[in-house]
Amino acid sequence: MSNKVKIAIDAMSGENAPEKIIEGIKISLNSNKENFFYLYGDENLLKKKISENKLLNEHCEIINTKDIILDDESPLAAAKRGKESSMWKAIECLKEKKAHISLSAGNTGALLVISRLLLPTIDGISKPALAALWPNKNYMSVVLDLGANIEFNEKNLLDFASMGASLFISLFESDSPKVALLNVGLEETKGHDILKKTYTALKSNKIKNFNFCGYIEGNHIMDGDIDVIVTDGFTGNVALKTAEGTANFITKGLKKSLNKFSILFSYKALRKFKEKLDPRKYNGAIFLGLENPVVKSHGGTDSIGFAHSINVCNKIVKADLIKKIKSNLITVDG
Amino acid sequence: MSNKVKIAIDAMSGENAPEKIIEGIKISLNSNKENFFYLYGDENLLKKKISENKLLNEHCEIINTKDIILDDESPLAAAKRGKESSMWKAIECLKEKKAHISLSAGNTGALLVISRLLLPTIDGISKPALAALWPNKNYMSVVLDLGANIEFNEKNLLDFASMGASLFISLFESDSPKVALLNVGLEETKGHDILKKTYTALKSNKIKNFNFCGYIEGNHIMDGDIDVIVTDGFTGNVALKTAEGTANFITKGLKKSLNKFSILFSYKALRKFKEKLDPRKYNGAIFLGLENPVVKSHGGTDSIGFAHSINVCNKIVKADLIKKIKSNLITVDG
Repeated sequence: MSNKVKIAIDAMSGENAPEKIIEGIKISLNSNKENFFYLYGDENLLKKKISENKLLNEHCEIINTKDIILDDESPLAAAKRGKESSMWKAIECLKEKKAHISLSAGNTGALLVISRLLLPTIDGISKPALAALWPNKNYMSVVLDLGANIEFNEKNLLDFASMGASLFISLFESDSPKVALLNVGLEETKGHDILKKTYTALKSNKIKNFNFCGYIEGNHIMDGDIDVIVTDGFTGNVALKTAEGTANFITKGLKKSLNKFSILFSYKALRKFKEKLDPRKYNGAIFLGLENPVVKSHGGTDSIGFAHSINVCNKIVKADLIKKIKSNLITVDG
Repeated sequence: MSNKVKIAIDAMSGENAPEKIIEGIKISLNSNKENFFYLYGDENLLKKKISENKLLNEHCEIINTKDIILDDESPLAAAKRGKESSMWKAIECLKEKKAHISLSAGNTGALLVISRLLLPTIDGISKPALAALWPNKNYMSVVLDLGANIEFNEKNLLDFASMGASLFISLFESDSPKVALLNVGLEETKGHDILKKTYTALKSNKIKNFNFCGYIEGNHIMDGDIDVIVTDGFTGNVALKTAEGTANFITKGLKKSLNKFSILFSYKALRKFKEKLDPRKYNGAIFLGLENPVVKSHGGTDSIGFAHSINVCNKIVKADLIKKIKSNLITVDG
């Protein structure tokens, strides 16, 4: 047990919870038995779900909670009234070092607010950020912030850059990830003042395990040349959602255009491409900058997607992400 | 001649100029003879190109210019040294009322700077904006600003909203376009302060020919429910380029996945979908807010794309866009 990666799971949030959650844990346990799960939720309900499965029984402990935070609650209202909820308790247990990491498929805003309320920010980090995985030609990049902060300054972007690099190293065992700032052009003079100051600071700082590559434009995010793409929460959120909308628009349009013979003739290759883009593989937004990592699974994902986010949790803990972030802080000297 | 739509064309800028430009004019004249073209560029070169074609000869006048602004020049440097360039002269002639509108496929930054230098801003408009057409499920939306301004305030966004609505009405003969602000969520409390103030102002103002629909998120831009999407130049530029990058990534990946039998079986439907998304149809970014309209064709488009941007110019002039903008200004009342 002492060597296990201990994951505190909000078992009651997200579509089809807790069934999807339990099923996701089962899928994950079939390929990896390194994790131990604290399940926060309705004890009677959860007991029934896991009692018949030996693997689940051995790798799960249920902690009864009385409340659930709903998807459509305002984050502040949820944080105010939700102290007995599965989400709150699954985060709170990190403070007591019961678990290494917390995972929820619930209300993102509430998760961010409750995490910030309960967990201290890492010394030297000004604001935490929400990072996610973005598919590209080669494999995946890390993009952040995706909406944890609307207001931002130069120090915030520097923190996002160093935290993003630490996350990339943790997830993909890379030595020196290529980091770039999202901007409207590549020249040094482009963009707003905060970006220009961040550019100068990143250029002049020598940062361990970090390869600063300047600016990147939106049309090159998926080229696979950059590992960590740094932006403010407003721009990052709009960019991510615009990419999702565009991808949906095109794949739906093409699906309609292909008749069954066409699909049959290219079945294997189409399936391979579909698998490459499968959003379940990119499931798991990581809330970075607090003393304990908190992972958000997409609420609408299925058990396979949830298993992927368990895998993200496992990698983050095993790579000691928080320690990496602490040793990789960027100080402004410009 | 007096009833003609007079278009001043920078005939020397963009890839494959002036051949592409002349070919584009020819294509446009074959379906619409309402336009007359002032071609700014190398007289000898242009004369040779149009001399053998009766239609071109009748509908074009060449004005000799001695210089060309290059694509990789910095906008300010280009504006400083480019007073004898085809781009400068094609914009300058609007001041003298020689033409109704100016069209160039050259350096976007230089075009914006030179236009602002030479043409007065419309009274009541704080900053001009760059608008473009964005494909959606139904047809097209207008999105602005796409990068003319990096710094912005509430008044700018209000101007963009009213100018965008006027452009939509001009291009698509719509009565009351649906307008929304691009944001990271739909609730009134979402987003930064400038957005919230703009929201309040748009909600409380009664604007002619204008249907304010609140916020829109990036993943719904292509749903076709909103006609005019308003954002700041930084966010708009990132969103547009991210959508382009995503579309390229997916279409290339799918193309690779489909073998020739698949393509053969769905040839017609695939071609129809390709046509719907053909970037040449969306060619023509419109610089709004100056006393004269200036249109920017994509530098890399071909003659068909250039003909589309001529069509945009024709519609803008015939609909009297500038008059529409002036009569549709939004004033902040609190």
